[in-house]
This record gives sequence, C-alpha cells and structure tokens, in this order.
Amino acid sequence: MAGNTFGTVFKLTTFGESHGPAIGGIIDGCPAGLQLDLEAVQQEMQRRKPGQSAIVTQRKEADTVNFLSGIFEGVTTGTPIGFTIANSDQKSKDYSHLKEAYRPSHADFSYDKKYGLRDYRGGGRSSARETACRVVAGAIAKQLLKDITITAYVSSVGEINLDKAYSDLDFSQIEQNPVRTADAEMAKTMEAYIREVRKEGDTVGGCISCVVQNVPAGWGEPVFDKLHAQLGKAMLSINAVKGFEYGSGFLSTTMKGSKHNDSFVADGSTKTNYSGGIQGGISNGADIYFKVAFKPVATLMQKQQTINTKGEEVELEGKGRHDPCVVPRAVPIVEAMTAMVLTDFWLLNKLSKI
Amino acid sequence: MAGNTFGTVFKLTTFGESHGPAIGGIIDGCPAGLQLDLEAVQQEMQRRKPGQSAIVTQRKEADTVNFLSGIFEGVTTGTPIGFTIANSDQKSKDYSHLKEAYRPSHADFSYDKKYGLRDYRGGGRSSARETACRVVAGAIAKQLLKDITITAYVSSVGEINLDKAYSDLDFSQIEQNPVRTADAEMAKTMEAYIREVRKEGDTVGGCISCVVQNVPAGWGEPVFDKLHAQLGKAMLSINAVKGFEYGSGFLSTTMKGSKHNDSFVADGSTKTNYSGGIQGGISNGADIYFKVAFKPVATLMQKQQTINTKGEEVELEGKGRHDPCVVPRAVPIVEAMTAMVLTDFWLLNKLSKI
Amino acid sequence: MAGNTFGTVFKLTTFGESHGPAIGGIIDGCPAGLQLDLEAVQQEMQRRKPGQSAIVTQRKEADTVNFLSGIFEGVTTGTPIGFTIANSDQKSKDYSHLKEAYRPSHADFSYDKKYGLRDYRGGGRSSARETACRVVAGAIAKQLLKDITITAYVSSVGEINLDKAYSDLDFSQIEQNPVRTADAEMAKTMEAYIREVRKEGDTVGGCISCVVQNVPAGWGEPVFDKLHAQLGKAMLSINAVKGFEYGSGFLSTTMKGSKHNDSFVADGSTKTNYSGGIQGGISNGADIYFKVAFKPVATLMQKQQTINTKGEEVELEGKGRHDPCVVPRAVPIVEAMTAMVLTDFWLLNKLSKI
Amino acid sequence: MAGNTFGTVFKLTTFGESHGPAIGGIIDGCPAGLQLDLEAVQQEMQRRKPGQSAIVTQRKEADTVNFLSGIFEGVTTGTPIGFTIANSDQKSKDYSHLKEAYRPSHADFSYDKKYGLRDYRGGGRSSARETACRVVAGAIAKQLLKDITITAYVSSVGEINLDKAYSDLDFSQIEQNPVRTADAEMAKTMEAYIREVRKEGDTVGGCISCVVQNVPAGWGEPVFDKLHAQLGKAMLSINAVKGFEYGSGFLSTTMKGSKHNDSFVADGSTKTNYSGGIQGGISNGADIYFKVAFKPVATLMQKQQTINTKGEEVELEGKGRHDPCVVPRAVPIVEAMTAMVLTDFWLLNKLSKI
Repeated sequence: MAGNTFGTVFKLTTFGESHGPAIGGIIDGCPAGLQLDLEAVQQEMQRRKPGQSAIVTQRKEADTVNFLSGIFEGVTTGTPIGFTIANSDQKSKDYSHLKEAYRPSHADFSYDKKYGLRDYRGGGRSSARETACRVVAGAIAKQLLKDITITAYVSSVGEINLDKAYSDLDFSQIEQNPVRTADAEMAKTMEAYIREVRKEGDTVGGCISCVVQNVPAGWGEPVFDKLHAQLGKAMLSINAVKGFEYGSGFLSTTMKGSKHNDSFVADGSTKTNYSGGIQGGISNGADIYFKVAFKPVATLMQKQQTINTKGEEVELEGKGRHDPCVVPRAVPIVEAMTAMVLTDFWLLNKLSKI
Repeated sequence: MAGNTFGTVFKLTTFGESHGPAIGGIIDGCPAGLQLDLEAVQQEMQRRKPGQSAIVTQRKEADTVNFLSGIFEGVTTGTPIGFTIANSDQKSKDYSHLKEAYRPSHADFSYDKKYGLRDYRGGGRSSARETACRVVAGAIAKQLLKDITITAYVSSVGEINLDKAYSDLDFSQIEQNPVRTADAEMAKTMEAYIREVRKEGDTVGGCISCVVQNVPAGWGEPVFDKLHAQLGKAMLSINAVKGFEYGSGFLSTTMKGSKHNDSFVADGSTKTNYSGGIQGGISNGADIYFKVAFKPVATLMQKQQTINTKGEEVELEGKGRHDPCVVPRAVPIVEAMTAMVLTDFWLLNKLSKI
Repeated sequence: MAGNTFGTVFKLTTFGESHGPAIGGIIDGCPAGLQLDLEAVQQEMQRRKPGQSAIVTQRKEADTVNFLSGIFEGVTTGTPIGFTIANSDQKSKDYSHLKEAYRPSHADFSYDKKYGLRDYRGGGRSSARETACRVVAGAIAKQLLKDITITAYVSSVGEINLDKAYSDLDFSQIEQNPVRTADAEMAKTMEAYIREVRKEGDTVGGCISCVVQNVPAGWGEPVFDKLHAQLGKAMLSINAVKGFEYGSGFLSTTMKGSKHNDSFVADGSTKTNYSGGIQGGISNGADIYFKVAFKPVATLMQKQQTINTKGEEVELEGKGRHDPCVVPRAVPIVEAMTAMVLTDFWLLNKLSKI
Repeated sequence: MAGNTFGTVFKLTTFGESHGPAIGGIIDGCPAGLQLDLEAVQQEMQRRKPGQSAIVTQRKEADTVNFLSGIFEGVTTGTPIGFTIANSDQKSKDYSHLKEAYRPSHADFSYDKKYGLRDYRGGGRSSARETACRVVAGAIAKQLLKDITITAYVSSVGEINLDKAYSDLDFSQIEQNPVRTADAEMAKTMEAYIREVRKEGDTVGGCISCVVQNVPAGWGEPVFDKLHAQLGKAMLSINAVKGFEYGSGFLSTTMKGSKHNDSFVADGSTKTNYSGGIQGGISNGADIYFKVAFKPVATLMQKQQTINTKGEEVELEGKGRHDPCVVPRAVPIVEAMTAMVLTDFWLLNKLSKI
C-alpha cells in the first residue's frame, strides 16, 4: 500500500533509487503462453534511454533489462517476471552538493517531511529513472495486446502547438525526428526551440497526445475504476505530469450537449467521437485518445536560490546532465502506462459475464 | 476488483442502481472514536440533492441517509459503516422508451457490450445517482480531517469563465448563489446563461476548481499513488468529468523552468505555488489546488437520432427532469472525493516512519 | 483494509452489528448473466437460522435477505449486489448487564483495547450473526459453480467422532437430522449428547468436515494464495474456529513419504488422495476435503467469574438464548465460505494463460 | 492478484524459480528510520540454508541476500526494499529426467493443467527455494517488532512427539541441536529417526510449534482478517504444510465451554490461555501460540511409478540432494511468516482509532 504497485490483475511492483546498484520490478499476473519478443522490449528501452539524441540528457546508461524469472524457453510461464536494470552511470559525486539543499520544485523537501530522511543522490526514488521499469512492463503488455495499436506523440513544446486532429497526422513521422512529433516541419521548429532553451540553461514543458486503436467495446470497470480514471491516474503518476484530459477534454466544458453528443449510426459506431472512445467509463469500440501535460523539468543549468535542511538560504546550480525538455523521452512511458492499463482491463473484462 | 471500491485504508464500496429500491455503501476503515455530526452529513446531501434550485433537475428525492452500523451512541466504533439511501422518486415508467434505444453519449451501449444486458431504467448503475454515496463517505471524511478546509466552486460555465486566482475570490459567496461560484456578479451571469440553455432543451458543461488548505507536508505516496494521481483518478471517476489538472496544470506546458520553479523561503514555504502544494506526489504544506472539467450533460430535452439494440435508427426525446448544467450540484461531490483521498493519505502517512 | 472484505475478484464486503437495525453486505464481481434462484438463497439462510431445531438457539430471526441492487428481472447484471438482513429480534435489554463486563473468551476485552469503545449489545460486530451475510454470498457462489458439489457435515461433537472416510458415508442423511452429521445412528448419539450439555447450561465443541467434488484441475494460485491457504483463512475467519487441516492433515506428519505420496495412474488421477485434491496450492481434479475445528461456544448458561472495565471482579450469568453446540448451524457457513473461495479461484483461473 | 504478494500494508512480493539465475522480492511498506542489522538478516538465512547439518539436504547455496534499494547509509528510507538471491548451485542437468514426468504429490501436474507449460527444473516456482525470500522479509519484520519474541521449534517428527506445554520447555536448546527441538534428549531421538529414514531413501513429516510473546492487546482485524486467520493463511502457504491450529486447536472440539473459557483476573490477564492469545480475531495480550503440520517431503530417493505428460506409465527415481525431513529448516520460515503477519497488524492497528 506504499504506492509502488500498479494494476489490479496485471500488476507491476517496482523498486529502486537512481543511484543504488540497480532498479527493477516484478510483473505479476502476466498470463502464461506468451512467446516474448525480448528484442522488442529492449527496443522500447532504447526509445526512453538518455543520450539518444542531441536534445535529451547526455547521461549514458545501457538500460539493459535483466530478466530473472517467469520466462522459460522464451515463453511466459504465468509466474512473476522479475527483472533488474543496473544503474551503470551513477556518478554519486555529482550529487553531494544536494545533501543539505532542497531543490526547488523537486521532491527533496516533501520526502524529508514524509520519511524523516532521504537518499539525496539524484532524486533517489523520486527520480524519473524509475520510469524505466514501467517501460519494461509496458513493452510486455503491448505484446499481450497484439491487435491494438498505441501511438503517443509530442503535440506541443512550450507554446509551439501541433494544432491538428490526430486523424490528419502522419504517425510514421514520429520516430523519424528526435522530438517525436507527428509532423516533419513542426519537428524542426520544436527541436530548434528546445536547443535554444537548453543553451539558456533553462527547460520547457510540453504535451503528449496518445491514440489507442482497435480496443473492443466493453473494457473498463464502472464507477471508481472507469477506464479513463485509471488512464488518468496512470499518466498523472508519471514524473512531471500536471494534467490529463481525454476525448473532448477541457474544451467540452464550453460546448452544448446538442453539439457534444456522439450520435450512433447503424453499425454501432458514432458520427463524432467527442467521447474519446469511452462512455460510462467503458470503451465503446471507437478510438481512445487523450492528452497529457508535462511541466518544465525542475533541474536547471542556472543558479537558483533555495534553502537547506536547516532553513538557511543557499545558492544552487544544476550539475550533471539533464533534459531541457522531457516530452520526447516521455513518449514511450505514456505508451507503456497505457498498455498496462489496457492489459489490466482486458483481463478483468474476461470476468464480466458468465 | 469490479470497480466499486475506492480507497486503500479508508475505503468506500458502493452499490445501487438509480431505479432499484435503494442505493448505499459501506465505509470500511473509519477510525473509532469520531463523534459524528450526522446533521452535517445530511447537510452535504442537501447540497448535492436534486430540486434545490431553479437551475437544477426538479426530481424530488429525500436523499435521507439511513445509517445501519458502525456508529454507537453517536461515535464511530471502528467497524464498517453501512448505509442506504432510498430511491423514493423512481418513476420507472419514464424510462420504458429506453429499453431498446442507446442514448447518445450515455453508457447504454458500452454496458450492453460489457455485460450482455443492462438495467435500462434511468442509467442504472451508470446514473449519477451513485454519487450520493460518495457524498456520505466524503462528509464523514471531512469530519476526520478537522483542521483542513476543502473548498470547491464553479469556475466556468460554458465559455463564461471566472478568471481570477482563488486567492482573490470570496469563498463565502459560494453557497449564496445557486451556481456555487465564488463571485456574486459572475453568479448572475452564469445563472442567466444556464436558464437560457435550459429553455433550449439543451445542456452545457463547465469547470469546478477546488482548493485544499492546511494539509501538512508529507501526505501522498510516491511513484504510482502520488497524491495528485489519486486525486485525478477520484475526479475522473465522477460522472461527466473529462479532464483534470493541478497546480499550474496545462498552462505549465508553455512555461520555462526558470519561471515555473517554486523557490523556497526560509520557513520552508515557497514564493510561488505552481506546484499546487504537491511535489514528487507528496504534499509540501502549501495550498493544494486543482481544476476539473465537466462535459455537457448527455440527456437533452430535444429530439435526437440514435439506434436501438437491433441497429435500427430510432428517434429519441429526453423525458423526465434533468440538469441543464451539472456543475452546481457536482461541487459537493468534488469536495467529497477530495476528502476521501486526503483521509486515506492521512492514515497511510501514519505508517511512513517508525 | 479493516478486514471486512473477503475475496480477490469475487468479493464480499459486510457490515453490521448483531443489535443494530440490520446487517448486510455488497457482493462485487459477480459476473453478469446468472439467472438467480432466490429461493435457493433463502433456503441456505434457513439452514443457518436460529430456532430451526431443539438443539440450537431458540432466538427467532426471520433472516429474510433483502436484495437492493445488481439483479434485474432475476438476472445478475455484473454490478454490485447490495443486500440487507433486518435484525428483527434484537432484545437489546438482554445485554445491558454486559455494558461493563468482559465475558470470558469473548471479544469484549480485545475490542475495547483495539478501538477504545465497543457496541456491547450481544457481541456487536464480533457476533456470529455476521456470518448470515457470508451465507448469502456463498449461496450465490454455489449457483455460479453449477457442476461442483460442496458437502459439509458434522464429523465430531465433543469426543463423539464419526470415524469413517467420507466415501463410506451417506451424504443424503445430512439434512435428515438436526446435528447435520452423515450417519443416522451417530446423529442420535450426538443429539442426545448436545441435549445433555444444554441441560447443564454448558456448551461443547466439534468438527465439520467438507468435501468438494468436480473441481477441475488448475484452480488456486501459487505461493501465497494457494487454494488450501485461502480455504484455511476462510474457515479460520468463521467465529469459534480453532484449527484447519486438509487432505491427510495433521496425520500426515506421522507418515513416511513412500506411503503418503499419491501415485498417478494413466488417466491423470491418483491411486490415493492424501493430497486432498490440491498439489502445490492448485487443484489436481481429485476431491478436495478438509476438516475444521470449532471450540465450545463461550456463552454459558452458568455463573462465571470475570472482571469489568475497571478491573473489578464481577459475576456473570449468560442470559438470552444461545447454542449449546455451534457446529450444526455452522455447516452452511463452511459451505458458503468454500463456495466463495472456489468462485474466486474459478474466475482468477480464467486469467492464467492466453 | 496472481498470488505472489503477501500482506496488506507491509507487503512482500516475490519472484523466481529454483533454477533461474536468481530469486528475489520487493518489500513495500517498511517504515523509514529503521537501522537495519544486515548481519541479523543473513543469520536468519543461515538457519534456513541447505547443507547446515547432516540431517538436511546437502545442496550448497550461498544464499547471500543482495539488497538493491530502500536502504541508505544503513537505514530504511520508506521506499521499497528490492533484493535478489542468486541461485548459485543450479545443476539443471539433474532435472532433465523430469521434463516429461509428473512426480507424485508434487506440483508438476497441477501447474501443467493451470498454465499449459511449466519450468520443470527442480519444481520451478513451486520449489521451496521460494521461501528464502520470505525469510528475508521476516528478518526485517523481526527488527521492526523489537520487543516481541517469536520462537518456533520442532514439536514432532513422525510419531515422536515432544508432548510438553511450551512453558515447560527450554527455548535456549532450540538452536543447539540440528532438529531445532526444545529438548536436548528429544533432539537425539528425533535426529536418530531422521537419519534412519534418510538411509531408507524415505522422508517423514513433523510439526512445528510457535510461541509469540509480548504482543500488545489490539492487534488483528475483525471478521475476515482475524489475526489467527491471517496466521493460518501464512502458514498454510508454506510448502508441505497440511494443517494449522492455534491455542487449544483441535483439542478444543472435545472440551466443554465451562472448562475451555479463559477467566479474566483483575489485571486483565487470564487464568488459562486456551484462547491462544487471540479473542475475536484480536490479540488480548497473552502469549500467542499455534502449531503447523508438515507432510513428508514428496521427493524420495526410491523408485516410484508415475505417468508422463502423455499419460504413459514411467518409473522415476529421485536424484539430487533432498531433505529427509523438512521441519528443521522450516523453523525460521514459520518465524518469518509470523513476523510478517504481526508487522502488518501492528501497522494497521495504528489506524484503528483517532
């Protein structure tokens, strides 16, 4: 109950600080009989990995997943899948200046208040390094969801906004540019802006949009565990996320019902899809789509005033290698959490009727 | 696991369809020794109740909570608090025309796909009537949280937006107007607009903002059960909600880190509060604030085209008594869910250190 | 997490004190589409009911189950099944003498220590009245398990022991005698003994054996949630239970492996069944059988010395109407808990492989 | 939900097959601020380890616990404690003869039926090797429970029964003999018998008794999560366990209430302790004691007839190095599970009243 487990029947429990020997996790509830494509898992890790392009952090981490159980002769056995990922590039010395200081808009202060102590090296448990474990579980979940496609992309960086419906975008562009946006021109503009921000030692936020196609009708549980409520929790649990909306989202608040209602047509589909593929918390067979807001990374390469554990004012300057904008690397994380949520509801839905 | 339980150690499990004999729930994990103010509970019920003003549905429901256990001589005993709320104004006949039809943007279609059948009377389990049980549990949670104040208010109706920081608002206004907004002038504009929309037989969406004050630092659990992730799930589980943001929310995506970071001052507080009182998923002692987006109610008093269970096109016209705008009545629901989330984290935080 | 929920995906949450207005519960996770035989549910209630024969308590309780949700036109809808059972024969006055006194071997003292207060009327939450709710959920579970037969019977009362293998018993006898044992002669001996004990104002313990037939191989989850571990927890959670053994049980500790091992024969069955139908925590298709030990009821119709809440010695004499021997009425409770455990594992097993 | 997690707020999740690269686990919910004695953890591992004496299996496993997170500068941080234990002595070749055969009274057959495949090497997930992870978590739990002493010992081997009340035993003897019984003379008899059984290539069962002292009144949760119900589940989840009884256990079934009731004396303690320190599922401050039945180990060093996956009869002979009697090595496992259950209820009880 201490918050390190996600899921109901397909469950990921993770452990690990950014600067301990390793992070890792246990996936419990993966059905037996899945021929695992381990290369595909590692490929997802590469998408999240630091150092993959000029606009993300230049830390070097191999991020090789070390599977320890639950797979026999390449096939899942139904028993828990344990795994570790070594923290190869720890450089604990980089963080000694943080022992006493509370970095602004980081978790240093709140962890200290909660636990009475903290592993101050690189954020410890609150480091986004933890999300690597989510990508492992998400990559396995994607393989379970075969026919379903989950596509996330960067839809804004700062005020640069890819203002098009997802149906007008070319998803094949996403992995062709370092920003992971779905438009070649926009990618250049965004990339140039991130480079500029990085030069200033500053950071900037952005949005990720995600589209899920081919989800059958009937997934999601009513009342408290609505499909979009669990998706929202999944996204909001990712480091730096400040908001979530699905379907028509915040824009729906300005609309009238007569316009917003999605009329059914004879085959059970709808003319419009303001509902975002979910009605009453349960998928209706239409595309599920949602948007996730990421704040600017809190670690700056600039001097900042802050306080230390004694309440004294101190000056702090970011060291090490950080992301000027987190959204390009967060794309596979958004997809991973989506895949986990859907796998859970796919399994739960097997129990909905006799 | 079928989605009808909310919370980890302070848990609400609910049951009930809108047109069965009663709805109800069980609150498990309420600590013993709380002198319950039952009138205060009923008062919260009145705030949610239909028929309380001219701009909400005119259904008549007594909504009297019938406590069955867990309270002895006015004090909680630590054992589960069971309660029922009779469905006094059922009028099942009103809904016979829905037996075969799938109402647009309702849960009729998706429930049928999931369960193979549904209680078609008034939405059954997917009816917002279910939220009455949340208000009961929230009202008890509020009493456990004594020193903490939770204030929700309507911050927009359609495109009419109360565009002020919460610190510039007069919260004492909220219960003085039927819209439950925190500004007397704005209340009139919003009310007039809702009356107009109702005359058209139409509906409109809106936003609710919520501010929580006096939460100590240290509440919330890291990684998957971050305070804002659980708040987000709580809000997104409320009927008609399409989006959630906390602190700087979606606006943060356009900001640079140098501006967005909340600098600490000597007493441990921060100069700004873009973080919305939560850092790394754990409260930092500052005000927690967030915004929730509600779509326009799907039931219209207009003719709509839709299909029936055989896939044939049929015409549908809303009958009965419905809300032209859901946000005024959703204010106590937002507060109730907030209180439940906070009570859960208050209790869990007692376990964080030895 | 306060202990009032049982099950993982087929879940029962209960509430209620023996002397409040009602007890009740919520069954969440019952699949949709089950045509419920409500008379069969009520029939199980009759088997547990006080006053059904001369050798059980003469309290009069109608024990009529009042279903409030989750069933539409006689069929389960997949939504939670809420129900209440009125406490019609409360006689709270009977218990006023217990306000200050701690009854020996009851839960009065430990509840007071845990909660700082208690509902002293008739045991409150610790009363065996709570088990009525288990019988409701168990009766529904039995209907889900169609082809599986669950047969419990009294196998000993005091030192009178029905020392026969279950395969040598005539199960059709069980409901023919008030003791619910599976042998007509033995029933008379046991009944005479219980009458004698009652005349003394005393009580006596006994054992219930249970046999489950036609469970397919593969039910149960490995490691912590082994089928027999969950069965054991289920039984030990019933009031007055002091022990549980399955298959060869305690006797196995005296045996050698060469004798105890169950040899497989060509069709996958085994020559012997010391394993009790469970290997590695998972059913193997053979009969599951186990035994449950019940202590003598703690409420005597004799004078007893005890202390009050101030630590003063006081004399206590049982009033009201109590069971001299609990096992005849506990037979349907054992069956109910068994049915719930099996239903849970039946559903979970749907998720074990792709 | 696939059965690999134990506990409610102090939770252990484990993974690992006996012949994979490593087993391991995650302890979530360990409060921050515990100065961990890692040597004491390793000492518990030694007590469970193979090869520690002549009467247990001669497999060689270092069983060194490799902690990966949750501990900083020797102190628990409140974040999850991840750990692995390498499988250093795998010898997978020893098990190739089991690829097709179903060993009698093992989990081979039932796993195959459940999952459609299995890791046949040495029992895979169903191997008792898994219990090493329980000992790690239990050793940490013991350190959290400071003032509470948990003492388990072998009370019978085959028909050799240490027939004394625990209060008449000398617990300091337990670690002085390889059988781990609490009587020097009895130890010799038991050891001689185990050696004899081993010579025959056979195995034998036995019982472990456990006494817990200094548990305050108030631990345990009512109804389904009674202290003894959770202890029972914990014990029954250990490999080879067939029965559990606490306090007066099965013997209570032969007693009358007038004898069995534990009379209170002025200080709140009781004259007798047939209740085994638990009343209504909640500790009453008296010693908690219980007994656990272990069947004879199923792997024999004799020829046995069995079937293979095609249903053909085959002959099987145990290879490798196995325990002739499991109880000496199971003593620390019983203590570990006890410690975990108590830690969980200690934490939960912090939430029982305001």
